[in-house]
Amino acid sequence: MAKSQHFPVLATFLTATAGRNMTRAAYVAVALGMAAMILLTVDAAYEVARRWIIALLWGCLAFFVFEWAVRVHHAARTHRPAAYLLSGRGLLDTVSAVAVPAALLLGTEPRAAWLLAVTWVVKVIPGVPGLRQLRRVLVVDARPLLSVLVLFLLVLFLGSVAEYVLEHEEQPATFGTIPSALWWAVATLTTTGYGDVVPITPLGRLVAASVMISGLGVFGLWTGILATGFAAETRRDNFLKTWESVSRVPFFASLGPSTIADVTQMLRTIDLPPRTSVIRKDQPGDCMYFIASGEVEVDLPGKKVRLGEGAFFGEMALLGNNLRSANISTTTLSKLLVLDLVDFRVLMARHPDLAQSIDAEAQRRAMENRT
Amino acid sequence: MAKSQHFPVLATFLTATAGRNMTRAAYVAVALGMAAMILLTVDAAYEVARRWIIALLWGCLAFFVFEWAVRVHHAARTHRPAAYLLSGRGLLDTVSAVAVPAALLLGTEPRAAWLLAVTWVVKVIPGVPGLRQLRRVLVVDARPLLSVLVLFLLVLFLGSVAEYVLEHEEQPATFGTIPSALWWAVATLTTTGYGDVVPITPLGRLVAASVMISGLGVFGLWTGILATGFAAETRRDNFLKTWESVSRVPFFASLGPSTIADVTQMLRTIDLPPRTSVIRKDQPGDCMYFIASGEVEVDLPGKKVRLGEGAFFGEMALLGNNLRSANISTTTLSKLLVLDLVDFRVLMARHPDLAQSIDAEAQRRAMENRT
Amino acid sequence: MAKSQHFPVLATFLTATAGRNMTRAAYVAVALGMAAMILLTVDAAYEVARRWIIALLWGCLAFFVFEWAVRVHHAARTHRPAAYLLSGRGLLDTVSAVAVPAALLLGTEPRAAWLLAVTWVVKVIPGVPGLRQLRRVLVVDARPLLSVLVLFLLVLFLGSVAEYVLEHEEQPATFGTIPSALWWAVATLTTTGYGDVVPITPLGRLVAASVMISGLGVFGLWTGILATGFAAETRRDNFLKTWESVSRVPFFASLGPSTIADVTQMLRTIDLPPRTSVIRKDQPGDCMYFIASGEVEVDLPGKKVRLGEGAFFGEMALLGNNLRSANISTTTLSKLLVLDLVDFRVLMARHPDLAQSIDAEAQRRAMENRT
Amino acid sequence: MAKSQHFPVLATFLTATAGRNMTRAAYVAVALGMAAMILLTVDAAYEVARRWIIALLWGCLAFFVFEWAVRVHHAARTHRPAAYLLSGRGLLDTVSAVAVPAALLLGTEPRAAWLLAVTWVVKVIPGVPGLRQLRRVLVVDARPLLSVLVLFLLVLFLGSVAEYVLEHEEQPATFGTIPSALWWAVATLTTTGYGDVVPITPLGRLVAASVMISGLGVFGLWTGILATGFAAETRRDNFLKTWESVSRVPFFASLGPSTIADVTQMLRTIDLPPRTSVIRKDQPGDCMYFIASGEVEVDLPGKKVRLGEGAFFGEMALLGNNLRSANISTTTLSKLLVLDLVDFRVLMARHPDLAQSIDAEAQRRAMENRT
Repeated sequence: MAKSQHFPVLATFLTATAGRNMTRAAYVAVALGMAAMILLTVDAAYEVARRWIIALLWGCLAFFVFEWAVRVHHAARTHRPAAYLLSGRGLLDTVSAVAVPAALLLGTEPRAAWLLAVTWVVKVIPGVPGLRQLRRVLVVDARPLLSVLVLFLLVLFLGSVAEYVLEHEEQPATFGTIPSALWWAVATLTTTGYGDVVPITPLGRLVAASVMISGLGVFGLWTGILATGFAAETRRDNFLKTWESVSRVPFFASLGPSTIADVTQMLRTIDLPPRTSVIRKDQPGDCMYFIASGEVEVDLPGKKVRLGEGAFFGEMALLGNNLRSANISTTTLSKLLVLDLVDFRVLMARHPDLAQSIDAEAQRRAMENRT
Repeated sequence: MAKSQHFPVLATFLTATAGRNMTRAAYVAVALGMAAMILLTVDAAYEVARRWIIALLWGCLAFFVFEWAVRVHHAARTHRPAAYLLSGRGLLDTVSAVAVPAALLLGTEPRAAWLLAVTWVVKVIPGVPGLRQLRRVLVVDARPLLSVLVLFLLVLFLGSVAEYVLEHEEQPATFGTIPSALWWAVATLTTTGYGDVVPITPLGRLVAASVMISGLGVFGLWTGILATGFAAETRRDNFLKTWESVSRVPFFASLGPSTIADVTQMLRTIDLPPRTSVIRKDQPGDCMYFIASGEVEVDLPGKKVRLGEGAFFGEMALLGNNLRSANISTTTLSKLLVLDLVDFRVLMARHPDLAQSIDAEAQRRAMENRT
Repeated sequence: MAKSQHFPVLATFLTATAGRNMTRAAYVAVALGMAAMILLTVDAAYEVARRWIIALLWGCLAFFVFEWAVRVHHAARTHRPAAYLLSGRGLLDTVSAVAVPAALLLGTEPRAAWLLAVTWVVKVIPGVPGLRQLRRVLVVDARPLLSVLVLFLLVLFLGSVAEYVLEHEEQPATFGTIPSALWWAVATLTTTGYGDVVPITPLGRLVAASVMISGLGVFGLWTGILATGFAAETRRDNFLKTWESVSRVPFFASLGPSTIADVTQMLRTIDLPPRTSVIRKDQPGDCMYFIASGEVEVDLPGKKVRLGEGAFFGEMALLGNNLRSANISTTTLSKLLVLDLVDFRVLMARHPDLAQSIDAEAQRRAMENRT
Repeated sequence: MAKSQHFPVLATFLTATAGRNMTRAAYVAVALGMAAMILLTVDAAYEVARRWIIALLWGCLAFFVFEWAVRVHHAARTHRPAAYLLSGRGLLDTVSAVAVPAALLLGTEPRAAWLLAVTWVVKVIPGVPGLRQLRRVLVVDARPLLSVLVLFLLVLFLGSVAEYVLEHEEQPATFGTIPSALWWAVATLTTTGYGDVVPITPLGRLVAASVMISGLGVFGLWTGILATGFAAETRRDNFLKTWESVSRVPFFASLGPSTIADVTQMLRTIDLPPRTSVIRKDQPGDCMYFIASGEVEVDLPGKKVRLGEGAFFGEMALLGNNLRSANISTTTLSKLLVLDLVDFRVLMARHPDLAQSIDAEAQRRAMENRT
């Protein structure tokens, strides 16, 4: 991997990010590469800008080959390179780097060979946020989803055989074979309904109608299962994310562990980029915030106050007047815990000591603002 | 903004409503304007009623320009006008007022210029009830929704490249470029299925079938996430609305805050217009009501009794006989808190003191009715 | 209404059922009438069986006129007939009875006049089970559903204006007016996708793609709101139905009201027709039953034991061995309360006295079976 | 059933699995048979590989006849064969074995007769996992689902009569009869939208638009009901699954069934991948764990202790000091039951014997760690 030594800046950059799934540069390369690949198939664009398209594709390919080389190099230093090459990500990287050159070497027509650049887009998958969550839903509900799939296939199969029997003499061109009837059945059962293959006999239409209505049923079951699974997963995820943050807020440190579990179920974490407005003055307020990490700036008349990790704010609109009394925005990337008015009331009712300390702090601040 | 001084009535009217998103007149103007704009594109209507259509459009435009002027005037008096003009609503108002005249001045063909009246319809958005709720769902569940969107785009892209490879030689007219294949993929993955572009090779149909089935999956995930988010949002919203009202009912004043939180989760608020029947005599009763604001009239034999804010009614059908004993209807716009039979029983079981005071009141009323 | 005196049997029958929404005979008449009306429009059937079809339609009409007459007669005796005639059901009945004769008298072509028989089908609506439940969901969630509808209309409108602008020069026949574009937009946004009107310009297709994806979003929100509302309604309905039944079972009479509320949330009511098998011998058992009304027969070796209102059965498979020890079926129409294994365990744990009495009864029965 | 004696190996194999719904061999036979049946209708495949296809079909048929014979034989030995033949599975088996031979004997054209092989695929149904769960949802929610179906049919019927009236003069070929209009309505209301029958008059399109939007509504209600039902079913299923795990932990074996129900509701199952940290040293502990399956490794100073199925850990932080005394992580995929501190205290208070044995074990471990 001596190659990476020749480009120290790029190599440093890539080595630093070798542990991450996708660098920002890689996203750009994927997007540009895909755009170029699409244009390659449009004759009008190809004739006008052939050189630029090809150059762009070669550039992207070079990037992915380089990225792959750096990662192999990095793996060689820390782990054994085989472990990386055989991992899912390693295989993806290798295919992205090798597929197009291999096709070109084997003499494939260039415009066809570059279609293999579609493998680049798959590199995006591991970086999709929340994919893990979706996968868990699919794994946990695998059994009922599978059984809906089997029902789907059964209706598909029985419907298409029935239509074949009823229609193949009337319409030999479209319902002449069971595979054609299956094509009709898929388009109908998913309610896509191209209309290229349509039953015309009365009985055929009756069967088709019941296939369509079954389609609605299958769809409903499918959605129902996913909705249920997703609800459970969301609850679980929120709890886990919040639990960790709650333990970092000193305000909750005095609580017993069972109360913390209670509080955790009420809070919601949000991640905010720097310089984002959290609270706008004179707007109605319906939640308060705890700072799990990061910092916010309170824009008081005449001075600016900064609140750091563990502080809370926004409680004044919940206690007395309903309107926010100051603008508040983040200064750095911050993780905030949001306590809705709903839960604020319940929490204060259950834990009078918390209520007191929030009250005391609110009064202290109100005093401070006045002076 | 001296112009508004010349029409004192209208100006008063508009100034009074300058703080609201949309006056009733503005809704009418949007509806009329849109109808006129649609008719403008129908040659038959244009030939017959050209003058009326154009007049109507000019009338609506005048209204929006006038509204805009009044609002700028109003903003100039209270805040700085720049704040209004740069706010979302101000921009909308400005575009609505300026777009069509600008196009006409720039020499656009009138029938084309009036199409810009479509910007008027966007003014409706801020007034949509529950939009805030929808936006919260989209914000809170942004991450999983985004990851479903990425999955959607991945299937879209991989599916269309596959179809391009499999079909572009058989059907150069429809699958000749990847953009055409993408068009097919969008129509298929959303289960729209126009049928203008349809794969015909066996392998192409197999790929299409899996794209359709993926479409069902994406759809199911999407719906599942939104359904989950919406359920949470609804719970939250109901609690907020009810909490405020409960605190105004003296009957609940004696309860501690934790019990109020308990009660709040059982109640549902409804807003009723004046002279609406709430309870019909001799109908089975399955809930009781507390008056958060407004007034109801009980139609007893021989006399009419009015109950005001804080009173409750409908408890007698829950305690003894199942049938309502009198007609009850609102006299003004009223906000009622509904306690279902379900929760009534639970609440009475948990709080015997509440049960006693309701019992006492019911007996007092029964006595009164008899005498 | 002297007419009904001439047909005493029918009159008795109809008077007896005058209070119900639909008699079984009326359902049959609606079904036959609709079938005849459909056949009337099919030339092949009309030529062959004209007389029979017309006779059937006249028969059904006679039935509905007769039903209407009996109901007016009935209303005249008990209430004032005006109250009936102005009620929703009365209007339906009147229209059903009068529409076709009126059209025939006014000289409408018979085959067209009989199409008004479609009003008969609307009589079915009040008898639909669970319709009240659906209506409640729509009322309670009216605001968010409305706001989704407004979003739907906005996308519809903006999408169709955009397509009109982009496509009306390329395809004057299909996108030549905004109403035509609206027709395209409805078919696209609901993912119906007829394919009779399809954009062909690149930009038009881009707009169409975003309309389709918005369609998925609107659909998901819509479903999410309905799913949430329906879940709440179902919980409420089950509780109401069960509460009434529980109070009739002596076994639960000793419990305090808060425990009854507890128990009610665990039970599920089912209505079974006579001679229906409830429990099959040697099958795994995962619930026990209480008889709210009706009667069951236990098929013990050598004898048959009948259990009436208030009794319970099926507890033995939950206590000891997992297999049912006897066949049990209903003898009359019965309402049973089902207690799942899950809730059985919880209930027994919370209320040891209930556990004891069930245990004692189970032992008594086991003894009896042995001897 | 003497035939089975000639193939002892197969007979043994089949007898062994006679009690199961589907052997693996049967799944293979169904798949092969279906593939062959599909190919039979494709002329190209039929001409090339006629012999192989027919041979394969005969082979599959022989398998099903054989399977049926073995099952009858098995039933004859244990129960009466009539019971098997009249059961659902028996009827399925008989039809699978007899349908094709009967058709061939009756002189049906062979390629048509073999289409009856589609009955084989229905044998798969009883083996679908989670089908029982789906059926329960459909049974429990039968009433609301039915009422949505009635609404669906009403919209279908009214919509198609309206379209017939509005369109049959313009388009006699497609909307000439009500059955044709019904065909349009089904394709539209299910959002399939073939596009073979499309309204063209302005009023017809307005009616069509409202049918499409009703389609969305019906779909949403349908999905909402199924989602709600499925959520309830999932909760029930989870309880049953946890219940089973609890019974495998010897620690709980001494408890009576009612206490186990109590415990089950306190516990939460979590599945952890291998090498996941469960407990971190010196962190506050607020729950203890039972191992339902899998294994964990306790990282004590100087040695590593492994705990397997049925063991518990994490109790020390709950009993004495609040901080965890060791790192603990899983070694394999493990299912743990989590008991929160709150529930731990309640459980210990109710069952002093459990408290004692946990205490004893904790002391033993503390001793061991010290030495």
